[in-house]
Amino acid sequence: MTTIKDVAKKAGVSVATVSRFLNDSGYVSLEAAKAVTSAVEELKYESNPVARSLNTKKSNLVGLILPDITNPFFPELARAVEDVGLTYGYTVVLCNSDEDPEKEKNYIETLKKKYIAGFIVTSNQLDAPHYANAKVPIVALDRTINEKIPIVSSNNAGAIMGTNALLERGCRNILFLRGPEKLNPANDRYEGFLEAIRNSDAHYQVVTCPFHFADSQKIVENVLKDHPQIDGIFASSDVSAAGALKAAGIVGKHVPDELQIVGFDGVAMGEMLSPGLTTVAQDVYKMGAIAARVLIKRIENKEIEQNFYEVPVKLVIRGTTREGME
Amino acid sequence: MTTIKDVAKKAGVSVATVSRFLNDSGYVSLEAAKAVTSAVEELKYESNPVARSLNTKKSNLVGLILPDITNPFFPELARAVEDVGLTYGYTVVLCNSDEDPEKEKNYIETLKKKYIAGFIVTSNQLDAPHYANAKVPIVALDRTINEKIPIVSSNNAGAIMGTNALLERGCRNILFLRGPEKLNPANDRYEGFLEAIRNSDAHYQVVTCPFHFADSQKIVENVLKDHPQIDGIFASSDVSAAGALKAAGIVGKHVPDELQIVGFDGVAMGEMLSPGLTTVAQDVYKMGAIAARVLIKRIENKEIEQNFYEVPVKLVIRGTTREGME
Repeated sequence: MTTIKDVAKKAGVSVATVSRFLNDSGYVSLEAAKAVTSAVEELKYESNPVARSLNTKKSNLVGLILPDITNPFFPELARAVEDVGLTYGYTVVLCNSDEDPEKEKNYIETLKKKYIAGFIVTSNQLDAPHYANAKVPIVALDRTINEKIPIVSSNNAGAIMGTNALLERGCRNILFLRGPEKLNPANDRYEGFLEAIRNSDAHYQVVTCPFHFADSQKIVENVLKDHPQIDGIFASSDVSAAGALKAAGIVGKHVPDELQIVGFDGVAMGEMLSPGLTTVAQDVYKMGAIAARVLIKRIENKEIEQNFYEVPVKLVIRGTTREGME
Repeated sequence: MTTIKDVAKKAGVSVATVSRFLNDSGYVSLEAAKAVTSAVEELKYESNPVARSLNTKKSNLVGLILPDITNPFFPELARAVEDVGLTYGYTVVLCNSDEDPEKEKNYIETLKKKYIAGFIVTSNQLDAPHYANAKVPIVALDRTINEKIPIVSSNNAGAIMGTNALLERGCRNILFLRGPEKLNPANDRYEGFLEAIRNSDAHYQVVTCPFHFADSQKIVENVLKDHPQIDGIFASSDVSAAGALKAAGIVGKHVPDELQIVGFDGVAMGEMLSPGLTTVAQDVYKMGAIAARVLIKRIENKEIEQNFYEVPVKLVIRGTTREGME
């Protein structure tokens, strides 16, 4: 196998010069750079990535920390990070945190020992010193960690759009399924809902509801029994909206004639429901792709344009809302 | 930072002895082993994993090669591999192959340069020399690569169970949605269907159908229009079954009164459909967990009990089939 010594010999320079050039870690004359480049090409020298990690204290591993890959929101995100990573020569290490701060901390410590190049983090740990002090580049999704860490987020105020979709279609008694209260995006969606509903004369009520199908179904079933006047439901996630749709079937409310439902997320499952779910769709793939691009720029010490990237959402109308605007 | 030299000094043995002991790479006397163990503990010595990779030519990275994490079958598999990996100190690198042999080959080559410890592979490349010659431990999911590579597979003959569920509920004209013909598990399910249906006096027809929602919906819509006598559909995947259910709604066939539907997979989405999907459920998490355990045993040169692990499936009855047996 060709070694760095062979390259140095061929190029007529010192091993230190070859190393400086390959690791971009110091001055190399233009002449030497040319000589090393042709020697590398001629000898088909491939630097050993593990040895390189040791020298540069950097690998091309990127850690993706997310709560749980089986939540339908995350596979598309992971896919995007992996696609963009691959383009730039990075591979992705998958970390399921279950929102457990101890588990997150362990990942960061273990992977830093492998000289991980950086992390993309989706976490509810708003106050997380293990991120703030990680000393490797980090990009956060949907969460503010501190002002130095770039954030990629959906425009969660798109909840205004979802609320208006119900109001414009004649809903006068709207149930809002609010997500977990400690969750930033869930709170932004709640704010968006309030802004839109307060500009109308419709009645509304708010119920806190986990992003979980069976739990959401049970909660909505009970609310619909107690409040038969409800004619619209806006759910903070598609999984909750799917639960609401199932509950409507059980209590015998026809969707969309008697009850209209709008979700938030835009996951593939929404299309498979009957009727198909109207939803405020996030561009999850784009969020992941931007996060990966920003992280790689930070790893490579390139300038990033901004510290906050907001990805637009759009309203996807399907069968759980009525056709005509009123 | 504590180095291996400090450990050797403390333990009163040579650096080579410490290294042999820590890397399990040669004889160490019981006395020396005890001395090294207490020195490691006392000095809180943590060997540098990147340096260890270089010495042992092994990292504790495990590659998970799958077609596409956004297919609802794979997130649960990835989760299981990650959970088991974590328990044994391995981290998981995620690789989406899109079933592209070139991409698979590139992953194997790139990751081998990082001294990847092993691979778990879900691939349709039945004849794939890049796996057979990879020279690192591999475990295959649902695929036979060669007789030396352990396989973890569902009992796809469970399709017999799904077919009988339709027959016992009175179906006499059954449509079988066969999966892609180059896919091993799809073919096993087809065999299972044929075995059960040929033991009955029911009519049947077979249509090839990708594991894709919208395509399946279109195919089934056309078949139902041309063959209104069809009273049962058995789909080789839940995603295809969801498409069939949607198609039934469009052509105005009531499920389950006029048409009964059974899927195969057991993904979470099946529960969210209305009516809920009756399906032959695989234990995807268990498949991933077994694959990870077998791989780690192979990496650590421990004996494995067998080369073929078959995980049972079970019939989950929901609303797309009628209640009473006939």
